[in-house]
Amino acid sequence: MFTDIFLPELMGTAILILLGCGVVANVVLPKTGGNAGGTLMINFGWGLAVYSGVYVAYKSGAHLNPAVTFGILAAGDSGLSFAEVVTYLVAQVLGAMLGATLAWAAYKKHFDDPDADEGSKLGVFSTMPTIRSHAWNVVTEVIGTFVLVFVILSFGRTPTQVGPLAVALLVVAIGASLGGPTGYAINPARDLGPRIMHALLPIPRKGSSGWDYAWVPVVAPLVGGTLGGLAARAVGFV
Amino acid sequence: MFTDIFLPELMGTAILILLGCGVVANVVLPKTGGNAGGTLMINFGWGLAVYSGVYVAYKSGAHLNPAVTFGILAAGDSGLSFAEVVTYLVAQVLGAMLGATLAWAAYKKHFDDPDADEGSKLGVFSTMPTIRSHAWNVVTEVIGTFVLVFVILSFGRTPTQVGPLAVALLVVAIGASLGGPTGYAINPARDLGPRIMHALLPIPRKGSSGWDYAWVPVVAPLVGGTLGGLAARAVGFV
Amino acid sequence: MFTDIFLPELMGTAILILLGCGVVANVVLPKTGGNAGGTLMINFGWGLAVYSGVYVAYKSGAHLNPAVTFGILAAGDSGLSFAEVVTYLVAQVLGAMLGATLAWAAYKKHFDDPDADEGSKLGVFSTMPTIRSHAWNVVTEVIGTFVLVFVILSFGRTPTQVGPLAVALLVVAIGASLGGPTGYAINPARDLGPRIMHALLPIPRKGSSGWDYAWVPVVAPLVGGTLGGLAARAVGFV
Amino acid sequence: MFTDIFLPELMGTAILILLGCGVVANVVLPKTGGNAGGTLMINFGWGLAVYSGVYVAYKSGAHLNPAVTFGILAAGDSGLSFAEVVTYLVAQVLGAMLGATLAWAAYKKHFDDPDADEGSKLGVFSTMPTIRSHAWNVVTEVIGTFVLVFVILSFGRTPTQVGPLAVALLVVAIGASLGGPTGYAINPARDLGPRIMHALLPIPRKGSSGWDYAWVPVVAPLVGGTLGGLAARAVGFV
Repeated sequence: MFTDIFLPELMGTAILILLGCGVVANVVLPKTGGNAGGTLMINFGWGLAVYSGVYVAYKSGAHLNPAVTFGILAAGDSGLSFAEVVTYLVAQVLGAMLGATLAWAAYKKHFDDPDADEGSKLGVFSTMPTIRSHAWNVVTEVIGTFVLVFVILSFGRTPTQVGPLAVALLVVAIGASLGGPTGYAINPARDLGPRIMHALLPIPRKGSSGWDYAWVPVVAPLVGGTLGGLAARAVGFV
Repeated sequence: MFTDIFLPELMGTAILILLGCGVVANVVLPKTGGNAGGTLMINFGWGLAVYSGVYVAYKSGAHLNPAVTFGILAAGDSGLSFAEVVTYLVAQVLGAMLGATLAWAAYKKHFDDPDADEGSKLGVFSTMPTIRSHAWNVVTEVIGTFVLVFVILSFGRTPTQVGPLAVALLVVAIGASLGGPTGYAINPARDLGPRIMHALLPIPRKGSSGWDYAWVPVVAPLVGGTLGGLAARAVGFV
Repeated sequence: MFTDIFLPELMGTAILILLGCGVVANVVLPKTGGNAGGTLMINFGWGLAVYSGVYVAYKSGAHLNPAVTFGILAAGDSGLSFAEVVTYLVAQVLGAMLGATLAWAAYKKHFDDPDADEGSKLGVFSTMPTIRSHAWNVVTEVIGTFVLVFVILSFGRTPTQVGPLAVALLVVAIGASLGGPTGYAINPARDLGPRIMHALLPIPRKGSSGWDYAWVPVVAPLVGGTLGGLAARAVGFV
Repeated sequence: MFTDIFLPELMGTAILILLGCGVVANVVLPKTGGNAGGTLMINFGWGLAVYSGVYVAYKSGAHLNPAVTFGILAAGDSGLSFAEVVTYLVAQVLGAMLGATLAWAAYKKHFDDPDADEGSKLGVFSTMPTIRSHAWNVVTEVIGTFVLVFVILSFGRTPTQVGPLAVALLVVAIGASLGGPTGYAINPARDLGPRIMHALLPIPRKGSSGWDYAWVPVVAPLVGGTLGGLAARAVGFV
């Protein structure tokens, strides 16, 4: 379980979060080369972060996301034991914490810059809604994660040879199309792991870690992923 | 016919319109993360919306568009019965209505925002020309849909393994190159289904649904798709 | 020769130029949906224009460009007769004229708009240098076309299954990297055919067609393509 | 060794640097078509520069980067002799010098423009940090190059048919996500070769070549690449 699940999920999620948090840092922190690079750059950055993580985690099937693990379980016949599922989830959260730490190290001087505001610094690590409404924020995250898991589970029916690019483009799509209201966590580990590191790391003038909102990008993606898995099973994708 | 045509076309078109209307919402509605994200982001968003929908609708051949269905009929030897054709068209329009409803739900708080103007709210759902001229608007939509169907029907002659990415990139191309005057409906279901939902949904201060223009993005794509199918047959693509 | 060379080259170049000139129209003409969409949008638009044209012209090998035809001849053993070469070239120029006419039709109302300035209107059709210097403009176009032909002729050595996407991405690369000084004609038909149509079409207030510069984007790409073919042969690509 | 290693590495690195330095020139030099085209355009430009170079250097395995060569050595069993390794490194630096010279020639009139400032002119050739801190700049370059080599060495485990596009997208990812602080040299030849040419070429009012910083983008990528190779070996990628 260590080399087949824990290590690849840890490494893959770390690469995913390093590159994902990194692109936000490049766009929102002051004095970076990519400052104000735009939303499409963030969308492509996260998509290609997933792309890179999936290659690294080939041995575990590259879930990299508890919502994907839940979706696979809901779709049935995963063959995963309870201990294996826990291993996936723990490795994903620890990998996300590691990746966020590396992203912080890469942008250390820009986090320390007096011009960096609190919202941008938190935004590098975790998602926050643009308009606060727990109920509708949950709706948005459920829809986004449903699309992620439902479409991923349809991939096997259309043979292609594009490999990890397939899911990368889907993540670009979800970010561009459904990321507007909540910043598309669509992955509990992606949001929770970096938020823990935001609280722990010695970032000057960092402000709140937004814990009152933190349950939304954990619970809603798990619901959306489970619904996606059930729907994929119901319509015969798996 | 239900599981082979209706269900996949319904699901695929719903995913297509959810992500397609979603990216417009992200760019044009106020206070979203992607506000003012630009035309290229909208072009990629719609291209990847088609990409995602095509995977989901693998079982029906993923028309997702009455103009594609008409083009396939015009190209000949489709083997489709009248009842099957009607099933395609009904599923496409219903799927588009479902997708538009989901996009509205995902962006609910941004539609309700007092800063959202009427034109933007309609623009999320349906196309409107930038310079009104029914005759020339028809020309633009006929050309765009001709390119869509004509090039799709040539795909089979060049073996690749990129799968649904092939048509996604073609849609990005048509949007970037021919979308300027009319917003590239190039798909009657894509325009009509969401326009119906714009009229039905409880959106505050929504203004006109633009019914006087609504026939253009229905009729012109059907003409363009049919011409594309006839041309593909004439030059030996099919 | 008609169905194997003339027709596919005519159709493919027409699609290429329709979409290529179209994306420039969308970005530079007033009141379009893509107005001020940026250089990257133009680069992707031209890349995907080539992509679409290559699918359509599969039967002729999709030269779509006299510089590519010259490069293939220079690389040796093309097996093309003089009459076939002439057929390629004539079809490419006629196809470019047809495509430019369709792009004009799609954007008719925006060309007629009183806010459209002369430079933008010519820019939709043909290239002009940003800093006029015939000698250095030739250098830029020779380098760009050399890269195009040299890299295309290396494609066969690395087996992939991405199909026409391979050359599309190369064209995006050349546009983004070498398009700054002269607008990357890198194709005599792409520049000459639309320039002829700019002179012929009834565009109000259209100004000069830039004939004093017109020889540069014809001669320089032919030189660059020929050098690319010779170099590819010398280093063993073909 | 000449035709199997020296020539392909020289040509491939020349194409890489011509297109890579070219896209920076297009975005940062005055009066170009792509002026102010944005960070994402630079990221795609460099990614597709690698893409083009990899095709050309198929015969040598397309290292194009001393950090990749070091990573392959660190991963073990490369079978490369000391003389072959030296041949790789020399060809890469010479190729980078050649590519930078061609990029300068393509943008000659824009380098000569009185509005071109010193920082932009150096920026076309070589990287400089946005916030100077040798220690943290090293950290950023080590992390970026680690990701490059570690992920490349994982590619072989996931069969795809996308060819050189795989590494191109990884380079886009690293640029977008980790390029903010130091401009992502992640390749000693990419930085050193053009810096030498910046010092040698007759560019008016060119200012300092930044030699005090020049060791960072040489040493840090070699460290990061070596660590990436060792890690890839430790976790069983190779």
